[in-house]
Amino acid sequence: MREPKAYIFDVFGTLVDWRSSVAREAGKAFESKRLNIDHIAFAEAWRGEYQPAMERIRSGNRGYIPLDDLHRENLDIILKSFDIETHFDEAERAELNTAWERLDPWSDVVSGLNQLKRRAIIAPCSNGSIALMTCLAKYAGLPWDCILGADIAQNYKPQPEVYLACCSALRLKSNEVMMVAAHNSDLEAAQEEGLLTCFIPRPAEYGEGQMEDLEPTGDWDNAIDSIEELAR
Amino acid sequence: MREPKAYIFDVFGTLVDWRSSVAREAGKAFESKRLNIDHIAFAEAWRGEYQPAMERIRSGNRGYIPLDDLHRENLDIILKSFDIETHFDEAERAELNTAWERLDPWSDVVSGLNQLKRRAIIAPCSNGSIALMTCLAKYAGLPWDCILGADIAQNYKPQPEVYLACCSALRLKSNEVMMVAAHNSDLEAAQEEGLLTCFIPRPAEYGEGQMEDLEPTGDWDNAIDSIEELAR
Repeated sequence: MREPKAYIFDVFGTLVDWRSSVAREAGKAFESKRLNIDHIAFAEAWRGEYQPAMERIRSGNRGYIPLDDLHRENLDIILKSFDIETHFDEAERAELNTAWERLDPWSDVVSGLNQLKRRAIIAPCSNGSIALMTCLAKYAGLPWDCILGADIAQNYKPQPEVYLACCSALRLKSNEVMMVAAHNSDLEAAQEEGLLTCFIPRPAEYGEGQMEDLEPTGDWDNAIDSIEELAR
Repeated sequence: MREPKAYIFDVFGTLVDWRSSVAREAGKAFESKRLNIDHIAFAEAWRGEYQPAMERIRSGNRGYIPLDDLHRENLDIILKSFDIETHFDEAERAELNTAWERLDPWSDVVSGLNQLKRRAIIAPCSNGSIALMTCLAKYAGLPWDCILGADIAQNYKPQPEVYLACCSALRLKSNEVMMVAAHNSDLEAAQEEGLLTCFIPRPAEYGEGQMEDLEPTGDWDNAIDSIEELAR
């Protein structure tokens, strides 16, 4: 296998720990309001609305809108399900929604990406918007060469056009681009479009009870334990 | 005036010296073929086809295609006008076309952008494609947070949608974004859409005889002599 000219990355779970980070940010909000809510359960419930919200768009029942707006709508749903909707006004909800811009990277990510960037193009191929990915990169120190993903394709992974739009934006053939993800389903969709694939396990993404994506389940081109390993 | 949340930049001329750099790259190609051609005249002629090529797209006579492809078409035109078309085969033309990915930054640019990046989002708002801007950034050391511009809008400056698409991709209001350019016409179009504007003179862009854009001709929000000054 020749060295890929570009590496594109799933972000939520693969590079950043959304669960602990959103829980931490929600926890700050709850504390300031003296609300006794399980932060982790709240973060998981918020993320739980992620796939259904995108599915409406993937299926064509709704036009593309950026993930920031889906997160904001989903926040309304879970504030209600946690029975705390009266405690947050519009401005406070908008502020809490920015939790998704402050997600901590796994410990191998920043140094690994910085090394990898010396020899190839690196970019997110995330369902997050350009705005969200840009803010997150500034917070987490992710040294992207450019921001690709859902906004570029005006659709959500695992729809084929998202992977193809990333290759096309870079003017590369799909077999010159490697998709790196902690989710086998993401790699399956990328491989279907001819991209190279690399699995990295993130067994703590969903906490101790995680059952899925503990190991590669497909015939991927590469499997690594850290982004630093990928850079070597 | 409040501090802009993002600074977006014209690139060709404003941040990089396309004229000397393309002349240098063309010069290497001519030398290897022992062709006695004026490198600077060749670079200027190549750039001379830039506006007419984009105008066909801006006017709606042709769908959007990335600048890389326009440069490549324009190369055919000028190889012919310099009467050297038989000296370059397809692969050599493709290689020469990558000259636009190797443009040297003016001396204040890299340090200025690195400083500015600490307190705001920085991105190109260029007519160059994402691919071209990504390669150029790696060559020139431009530390972009994300790549915006023509590809995002699927149109060319100074069409209004290019400036608006940049703001929209960042989910910012137009008056939270400052357009920085060495060309008054670029700032005029940006101001029309409500963006903040900043002029920086680049009197050497077109060499010694330059007559245009030697000073600000509009009511811009800021005027500076270097990107380092902007960062201070």
